[in-house]
Amino acid sequence: MHNFNPRIRFFEFIRDLQETVCKSLEEIEGSESFIEDSWDRPEGGGGWSRIFSGGAVLEKAGVNVSEVHGPIPDILKDQVPSAAKSFYATGISIVIHPRNPMAPTTHANFRYFQVLDSNDDILDQWFGGGADLTPYYLFEEDASHFHRTLKTTCDEHNQDFYPKFKVWCDKYFYNTHRQEQRGIGGIFFDHLRPGEELQETELENFIYKIASAFLPAYIPIIKQRMNLNYSSAQKHWQEVRRGRYVEFNLLHDRGTIFGLKTGGRIESIFMSLPPIVRWEYNVSPKKNTAEWNTLEILKKPKNWL
Amino acid sequence: MHNFNPRIRFFEFIRDLQETVCKSLEEIEGSESFIEDSWDRPEGGGGWSRIFSGGAVLEKAGVNVSEVHGPIPDILKDQVPSAAKSFYATGISIVIHPRNPMAPTTHANFRYFQVLDSNDDILDQWFGGGADLTPYYLFEEDASHFHRTLKTTCDEHNQDFYPKFKVWCDKYFYNTHRQEQRGIGGIFFDHLRPGEELQETELENFIYKIASAFLPAYIPIIKQRMNLNYSSAQKHWQEVRRGRYVEFNLLHDRGTIFGLKTGGRIESIFMSLPPIVRWEYNVSPKKNTAEWNTLEILKKPKNWL
Repeated sequence: MHNFNPRIRFFEFIRDLQETVCKSLEEIEGSESFIEDSWDRPEGGGGWSRIFSGGAVLEKAGVNVSEVHGPIPDILKDQVPSAAKSFYATGISIVIHPRNPMAPTTHANFRYFQVLDSNDDILDQWFGGGADLTPYYLFEEDASHFHRTLKTTCDEHNQDFYPKFKVWCDKYFYNTHRQEQRGIGGIFFDHLRPGEELQETELENFIYKIASAFLPAYIPIIKQRMNLNYSSAQKHWQEVRRGRYVEFNLLHDRGTIFGLKTGGRIESIFMSLPPIVRWEYNVSPKKNTAEWNTLEILKKPKNWL
Repeated sequence: MHNFNPRIRFFEFIRDLQETVCKSLEEIEGSESFIEDSWDRPEGGGGWSRIFSGGAVLEKAGVNVSEVHGPIPDILKDQVPSAAKSFYATGISIVIHPRNPMAPTTHANFRYFQVLDSNDDILDQWFGGGADLTPYYLFEEDASHFHRTLKTTCDEHNQDFYPKFKVWCDKYFYNTHRQEQRGIGGIFFDHLRPGEELQETELENFIYKIASAFLPAYIPIIKQRMNLNYSSAQKHWQEVRRGRYVEFNLLHDRGTIFGLKTGGRIESIFMSLPPIVRWEYNVSPKKNTAEWNTLEILKKPKNWL
């Protein structure tokens, strides 16, 4: 049994973060853009989806918060103690697909999970999350900036975090069937329990800081790239590469599968899918082109710092 | 042990069918279109992929034959007798994505599978296959023609086949996460073993006949629809609906997953994916429009005859 229960504080934090991220993206877009849809989960809980598409800068973006609870879903039964009777999960998911192929797609997610017994006492609890970048054209300074911003925040809390979470991210966002990284990574972590690497309040504080590092990690990059010129061939390349993003999310992503199997709202889960995608047969860029360079970079994880 | 071994005859049949289907599609397209790529599977066997895209009629089409063999892959170990040492599988897959949204997408697949012991004696063998139709705009007479053509051939061999295989198809091509049929069905069957519903030669003969029924089932439909006028909004709707096709193939299709897990060639497996696809948030056609009608039809299987 744990007395530490950051549920309400974390939920309020991510609702605030949702607002901050949307405002920040609307500032870039130059107009109020996001619509909010709320939804209920029949078995308990629901969510607030903020979606925008068709912008000059943001071809599609989603900033979703969900808070779900109820009996342990089948998909989790093997992973929780036998005394477990119910669960509570809340999290924020951010996916940004810029229109300009020079600007990378990004994804971030921060979540908190509780396993409860029949008295609603906490049997287990953990935080998870991460942020990663998927460029279509590689600007090394963007990759470095993104990683450095996340590393700086990690380092303030635990020197082991960045190296560990960076590798975790590279392993997670891997399209096994293509033997290709989804993007140039970032950080990924799961099952961070209070009292393990960090004590209760320190852990909670780390989560707030790393989630708050997402905007300074990404916003300068999209600002730098959103007005660059690009050709229709470069746009085409972006649309082909977005296919790999769909393949990862539908074939491999545990978050997507968790959402689908626990009665999450389809339209909110699939806000992560890019707006326009192409599948063409056997696309093979010529050697030493920028497109070929992107593929080379994605063959194996790289140290960006 | 079985003396009945149609492996070579079936393989020759599907190579001939591949040629016939491509010629028939090229005639519709009005030009020679398909390119052939052959590929080797490191563990044994390989394939011949015929692909065409960017046509006036055929936005993307693939007609693939593969013949693979070797040690039992992990994904199959639970499903074969303990004496099983190797497998042999050969099949043809056809996927046609027309440009005109009034013309339906179609898919067909016919395959033969052997499980062999250490003496290369056949421990088990079966045929599988099917053909189905995915319209974006429903023409009831197209659905009826497709089903009737398949039923007529089924009925000549076994009166139970069409009713059984029609239901099997409806159950298989179902997007559980959307609670929506992928299309208006057709037939689907698997594990048809010689000596069960049909004796050896009769079964082999049925497979040739039903595979040969695919062209007369589909070609009249595409000819009827390929020159109809359509608006950019109707094209847009087709691209949105193609997203459901991708979702089915990546989330649910056993054939896709079997291919990926047994070292099939990615670019050949993914020839099934549509050329241009859109994911938009919460697309909801107005009541009583043609788009709404398509969604209504896909809510539950229907008897088309």
